[in-house]
Amino acid sequence: MGFIEKLAGAARKNKSLVCVGLDPDPVLMPPDVKLLDFNRAIIEATADLVCAYKPNLAFYEALGSEGMSALKETVKLVPQGIPVIADAKRSDIGNTARAYARALFEYFGFDASTVNPLLGHDAVQPFLDYKDRGVIILCRTSNPGAVDFQSLKCETPDGMRPLYEIIARKAHEWNQAGNVGLVVGATYPEELKMIRDTYPEMPLLIPGVGAQGGDLALTVQYGADARRERTIINSSRQILYASRGKDFAGAARGAAQKMRDEINKVLEEK
Amino acid sequence: MGFIEKLAGAARKNKSLVCVGLDPDPVLMPPDVKLLDFNRAIIEATADLVCAYKPNLAFYEALGSEGMSALKETVKLVPQGIPVIADAKRSDIGNTARAYARALFEYFGFDASTVNPLLGHDAVQPFLDYKDRGVIILCRTSNPGAVDFQSLKCETPDGMRPLYEIIARKAHEWNQAGNVGLVVGATYPEELKMIRDTYPEMPLLIPGVGAQGGDLALTVQYGADARRERTIINSSRQILYASRGKDFAGAARGAAQKMRDEINKVLEEK
Repeated sequence: MGFIEKLAGAARKNKSLVCVGLDPDPVLMPPDVKLLDFNRAIIEATADLVCAYKPNLAFYEALGSEGMSALKETVKLVPQGIPVIADAKRSDIGNTARAYARALFEYFGFDASTVNPLLGHDAVQPFLDYKDRGVIILCRTSNPGAVDFQSLKCETPDGMRPLYEIIARKAHEWNQAGNVGLVVGATYPEELKMIRDTYPEMPLLIPGVGAQGGDLALTVQYGADARRERTIINSSRQILYASRGKDFAGAARGAAQKMRDEINKVLEEK
Repeated sequence: MGFIEKLAGAARKNKSLVCVGLDPDPVLMPPDVKLLDFNRAIIEATADLVCAYKPNLAFYEALGSEGMSALKETVKLVPQGIPVIADAKRSDIGNTARAYARALFEYFGFDASTVNPLLGHDAVQPFLDYKDRGVIILCRTSNPGAVDFQSLKCETPDGMRPLYEIIARKAHEWNQAGNVGLVVGATYPEELKMIRDTYPEMPLLIPGVGAQGGDLALTVQYGADARRERTIINSSRQILYASRGKDFAGAARGAAQKMRDEINKVLEEK
């Protein structure tokens, strides 16, 4: 089963567009809980409430080879029907991109990965070659610095367009196997609306609600796809660190449930 | 000692602008030689001929946690006076970029890292905060796909400029601590000339000679800085895999020496 089908299946089964970002931060985690135990507890507490999980590799790399082993184990902890997205934002030339794709899709066994498109087509192709995996291309990131380059107006055959629009268009061109998605931050709702209106069928991974300040209701209104199975609304800190006490898993469940229900309420009214 | 001083020291001591890319590929490596033994032999055979080493993280990640341990050990194998550059091309939002910077500069102990600037200033700042480490920003990459986005003509206050020029300008703005460099591929000599002429003092990391087809003499003519201590001309496969036999280390030494001497000949005539 490919990434897109797995995502749709989990979204339907759990009636959820919530993705939990598994970003372990020793400073925010409950004291005396080991990384893998933390992830296991979070996954067990939320597995019937999500459409995907998304570990960001930076947090595991910062913990050294122990972190990397925990990452590999974490991928295995996720129940079969739920896709696991590597938030890796990798980018390199063809020969090297192949090694990254091998690491993420074969060694770790992720269902999908985020990819930075700045190096162009031959840097993305080795990921696209895994037709049963998702390739989610950074288009409009959720951070303030996104405006530095992604907003630049660029020359195209049909007039001036911002860079992020040109990236979306290229990603759509590259989507021969139907396995390409886009990252669009909840913190830029107008851009999100434009991208969703232009690409109604593409999976969108939407970070930026919660700690980063994106508005959840607006995100759902502007970003959700008609079938409600290709929209991945991520929350990391707000769910993972809902409590630092012994009840952290229950608190995470509560936060995930609240977010799912809020999303579904907006969808019903839509 | 900061990255820039270390780089200048090694370039002067070894009279060399050669950087050896430590990119272990099991398919190309001599059979029956273990990764760490391979890297040790290459480093011992070339340490008096280079200004830097540059492991690309993709090749280590593709080998799993064994690869990551070998990477950490490899950084330690390099003699004190020679900088080790992480070719990591990382990019993420501020909170996460901090974790990447910690992984590369603290856990692995690299002297510098390549960084992908697509996410803008707050994604690069956590790297810049390590003032004694080098932050080498992707400007014009060496691959064919570089033209997809990096060549786009963009609107700026003083007219239309290609994206890679705007990236170089931003990197120069961000260079408050004097620790910023640029990646410019040898496969785009005109762009290399323009960047070097505009930023005579900035360290340039130049991949793309050798297997990728960039012209070495032109690279030196266009890319070398006046003091000959801020120019890092990388070769990976041509040096590492000069022989697949038992003489691989000697062959690598021969290839590195040939490259250094060719560079120095062009510099003498310049």
